[in-house]
Amino acid sequence: MFEALFQTFEEPETGVALTARLSAFREELARRNLTGFVVPRADQQQNEYVPPSDERLAWLTGFTGSAGQAIVLMQAAAVFVDGRYTLQAAKQVDTKAWSVEPLADPPPESWLAKHLAAGDRLGFDPWLHTSASAERLTAACAKAGAELVAVDSNPLDSVWTERPPPPLGPVSVHGPQFAGEAEAQKIQQIRTEVTKLGAETLVLSDSHAVAWTFNIRGADVAHTPLPLSYALVPKDGRPTVFIDHRKLSNSARDHLEQSADVAEPDALAPKLTELAQRGAVIALDAATAADALSRMIAAAGGKPLRGSDPVTLLKAVKNKTEIEGARAAHRRDAVALARFLAWIDREAPAGHLTEIDAVEALETFRRDTGALKDVSFPTIAGTGPNGAIVHYRVTRKSNRRISPGDLLLIDSGAQYEDGTTDVTRTIAIGAPTLEMQDRFTRVLRGHIAIARALFPDGTTGAQLDSLARQYLWQAGIDFEHGTGHGVGSYLSVHEGPARISKLGATPLRRGMILSNEPGYYKTDAFGIRIENLELVVGAEIPGAEKPVNAFETLTLTPIDRRLVDLSMLSGDELAWLNDYHERVRHAVRPHVDEATKVWLDAATAPLSL
Amino acid sequence: MFEALFQTFEEPETGVALTARLSAFREELARRNLTGFVVPRADQQQNEYVPPSDERLAWLTGFTGSAGQAIVLMQAAAVFVDGRYTLQAAKQVDTKAWSVEPLADPPPESWLAKHLAAGDRLGFDPWLHTSASAERLTAACAKAGAELVAVDSNPLDSVWTERPPPPLGPVSVHGPQFAGEAEAQKIQQIRTEVTKLGAETLVLSDSHAVAWTFNIRGADVAHTPLPLSYALVPKDGRPTVFIDHRKLSNSARDHLEQSADVAEPDALAPKLTELAQRGAVIALDAATAADALSRMIAAAGGKPLRGSDPVTLLKAVKNKTEIEGARAAHRRDAVALARFLAWIDREAPAGHLTEIDAVEALETFRRDTGALKDVSFPTIAGTGPNGAIVHYRVTRKSNRRISPGDLLLIDSGAQYEDGTTDVTRTIAIGAPTLEMQDRFTRVLRGHIAIARALFPDGTTGAQLDSLARQYLWQAGIDFEHGTGHGVGSYLSVHEGPARISKLGATPLRRGMILSNEPGYYKTDAFGIRIENLELVVGAEIPGAEKPVNAFETLTLTPIDRRLVDLSMLSGDELAWLNDYHERVRHAVRPHVDEATKVWLDAATAPLSL
Repeated sequence: MFEALFQTFEEPETGVALTARLSAFREELARRNLTGFVVPRADQQQNEYVPPSDERLAWLTGFTGSAGQAIVLMQAAAVFVDGRYTLQAAKQVDTKAWSVEPLADPPPESWLAKHLAAGDRLGFDPWLHTSASAERLTAACAKAGAELVAVDSNPLDSVWTERPPPPLGPVSVHGPQFAGEAEAQKIQQIRTEVTKLGAETLVLSDSHAVAWTFNIRGADVAHTPLPLSYALVPKDGRPTVFIDHRKLSNSARDHLEQSADVAEPDALAPKLTELAQRGAVIALDAATAADALSRMIAAAGGKPLRGSDPVTLLKAVKNKTEIEGARAAHRRDAVALARFLAWIDREAPAGHLTEIDAVEALETFRRDTGALKDVSFPTIAGTGPNGAIVHYRVTRKSNRRISPGDLLLIDSGAQYEDGTTDVTRTIAIGAPTLEMQDRFTRVLRGHIAIARALFPDGTTGAQLDSLARQYLWQAGIDFEHGTGHGVGSYLSVHEGPARISKLGATPLRRGMILSNEPGYYKTDAFGIRIENLELVVGAEIPGAEKPVNAFETLTLTPIDRRLVDLSMLSGDELAWLNDYHERVRHAVRPHVDEATKVWLDAATAPLSL
Repeated sequence: MFEALFQTFEEPETGVALTARLSAFREELARRNLTGFVVPRADQQQNEYVPPSDERLAWLTGFTGSAGQAIVLMQAAAVFVDGRYTLQAAKQVDTKAWSVEPLADPPPESWLAKHLAAGDRLGFDPWLHTSASAERLTAACAKAGAELVAVDSNPLDSVWTERPPPPLGPVSVHGPQFAGEAEAQKIQQIRTEVTKLGAETLVLSDSHAVAWTFNIRGADVAHTPLPLSYALVPKDGRPTVFIDHRKLSNSARDHLEQSADVAEPDALAPKLTELAQRGAVIALDAATAADALSRMIAAAGGKPLRGSDPVTLLKAVKNKTEIEGARAAHRRDAVALARFLAWIDREAPAGHLTEIDAVEALETFRRDTGALKDVSFPTIAGTGPNGAIVHYRVTRKSNRRISPGDLLLIDSGAQYEDGTTDVTRTIAIGAPTLEMQDRFTRVLRGHIAIARALFPDGTTGAQLDSLARQYLWQAGIDFEHGTGHGVGSYLSVHEGPARISKLGATPLRRGMILSNEPGYYKTDAFGIRIENLELVVGAEIPGAEKPVNAFETLTLTPIDRRLVDLSMLSGDELAWLNDYHERVRHAVRPHVDEATKVWLDAATAPLSL
């Protein structure tokens, strides 16, 4: 029944075979006259999900987390991971060969300061690092009297004999019924921005930007419909899209050629070199452009201008069609979620279900919509203590039975052609404790404070973040992640530049979609998170002296009433919850079976103090 | 009765005499082979209040605001001011000679780009600019093909023949009963920081830092007991204080010499040069150190290390003695405020009082405490539309009668040896309108949200700022200033590094004192601000998972109950207001006359819904 899931539950490989890989890699480094090498978990575009051909870090070390870096020297080797992966890395890597070190505070450069010797030659692949990353490595090497060497070809690829080929996912056209704005208009907007930057041309080094600009989608990485590609958008003249021809059907090619020249990825370097030789100022996205691109431009006499890709902001502000699509996607997703939650409430109290059962069922309900293209990320289904692991991903080994007395945290999302969803619910299995209710209600009050916030134009996510935390702070608790991230339109579920976090410096604009997901995690006990997606909309306020914005909640899924301590809610908060549940009921009820209707009516019935 | 006020109400000089000054200045520039000059409103230490000898901008242009800059070229001259001073500058300067331009967005450098010609020689006095400011000027000149020339002596001083001498305010010892920590201990802490910075020595280029470190106070500028001076604190060995000997009594000198060598200000340059010639790394405060210091060090072969002066943070965290002093100063100030508010309530409704009467009376009540050293800034007393001018300062010309139906906004503070105060109250004269009550109550709710906030260690002022704005945002209104600033201990009423503002990146630490002053300003109608000072203290919360902080309100002055719309307050907010008023009553009642007692009892009587 569940064979074709988008998600797998397998443990990654570990052990002796990997140690042999490290020896072979060191021999290759020696052959190349290098005394060390940096292996980031990155592809050429700093993507969140990378194709199997770019899983160099996992292949070499066994560590499969979504962020990290290895540094191999002749006498020492370290894997650098952030706090959420410290335990996982220690389990996955051979700790006789590797030490596990922090990815920040202190950064890998501190480790280099201790382990690099004068005269060392540390190699790195400039296609897998941004220029900022390369600059940090350069400084670290200079301090130690060592040399940083940018290699032409990656030495790891020479020893990774079974390395899979780069992906060739077919490209599809993202039609006007979903995109809402023609390529020509988008290109015109970008040209205006390129002119403002004082640049000759802009390199789209982020496949998300290429996908948005040219209204295409792809199938090269998991969970995000990315067509791995590059593009150049000059301030005048025709853009060029650099993409492997094997990904293009005739119709996809025809579509692209209406607004751009199409070239092979290999053609990017000569094209940039040619522009650079004419002394052109070439704008690069500092967050995604490989250092190799900057080097190439500078070496040919051009001027690399590093900054923020203007497409990032254009893409984040959804147009009317995308907004209507998002609303439709969320109504559809809500039906699957309601069926799932009704099923959980029926089945889980008996104590027979596991986390994997929950993941499989949820994906099945989503497939039943007939519109599911992929999950937007691997579902996080953590029951009891597993719920307290913020980035938990169930495997056959970690899989836990869902037992009465547990809180079950389910964070999941879908990719539909009209929109991307991301929703977290926390469900009481059996009777919750008073502590669970207290914590849940504080998280809910923070969630409602964001959902109900009114804020003037120009307000950043940083300014809203503490609204979500205030009731947790009052109890001396908090959550160690941001309150919300931007979400793409049938693109990445994590999309910049706006976010609700103390680092969120981008003003929130009407048309942006952000998650609202405060939480609380009690280590070894339970996890709570309540996540809806919110659309930034204008608010009509009589007497307002400036434009004010508000959030329209897109997600339409009941919040577990059994976990709410009503005595802690204000009248306004209770009214919000009841209104929300009424909206959910009206949107979902006509589209579900009788049993789910009964469940839904109870789950959305109004509460009173 | 009021002759000896700390504040004056005179209009600054304007007119024809000033135009003659501009001509004389241009002739002097020509004599020196310069084609232009930059005249900032600054002294050598970027002080908020500058001595009369540094009021070059006002002398040359007539503009008397607390921030600004002039640029004089041969064919053009401009005064650059921020938004709050645009109208004032246009009135004060001769607009036939000067154009009034924005100080930011765009910055003066944009004006330079338009007006500088290739080959121009733009002079600046490196003692009056930070290095960051000098770097911006250098870049602007380079763009225009002009040259930036650092002068050895200021050409304006050559034509300002009646320039007053630098101040020689006597230095007093800030005794252990106020300072709470001996100089030797403070110096030891600074040495630790200098060592951490990897520097040989630290230049204290901020007189506040010198005053704090060596437990002295001075009388060189208005409203802040600053002893204009410099110091060097080496990581090993004895510090040196550079200060004019004429400011030092024998006892003050004896005090200083217990922990430092004492030298004339002239000796700073040779001493720095000598250190620099030995190649020393010399730490400078980027915010206050004159560019001349960096140049001097670099020219002699030393390494200027620009950063944040570690004393700024040490000074911001008050010790037990300073905290006790602040509490005592606020209790004393509260008595003066209560007498003042009772007097206003008695006298103002008849419509005979003016803003100047209010300023004079308030200062008199403060003098009656017997402990007033100065006001901590010129009192802002704005009635009716004047209240809407955020940085209003009454003059004989602007002075307005306080009339029934007005809101009177009074923002004032005192310098006592045991602490500095800063308090704003908004008072209804006669019956307020419903709009005034609505706005006042929204401001009050924001004020209470800050006062009641609980927040984990590490929380910055930026994270708290929007708590003060949320209820205004709900009505589509806001205030265009920060919510709060740090406050010194018998030092500057505006003290870094912490502040409650979206720019407040410094974590709030226990012992810091900050203002809490949300407001609302309706142009041409009325202004509202409610300001208390808050001390950061630890909060005891059962079950807390991390250290949590709270604010202890230091200010003890009734908040006008007639302006509160009770129907808008939550139960918690009302309880806060009643508790606060009870604290005020208990603290103030024993120390006031019968009439004030009667007033106080009514002004602090509990409210109920």
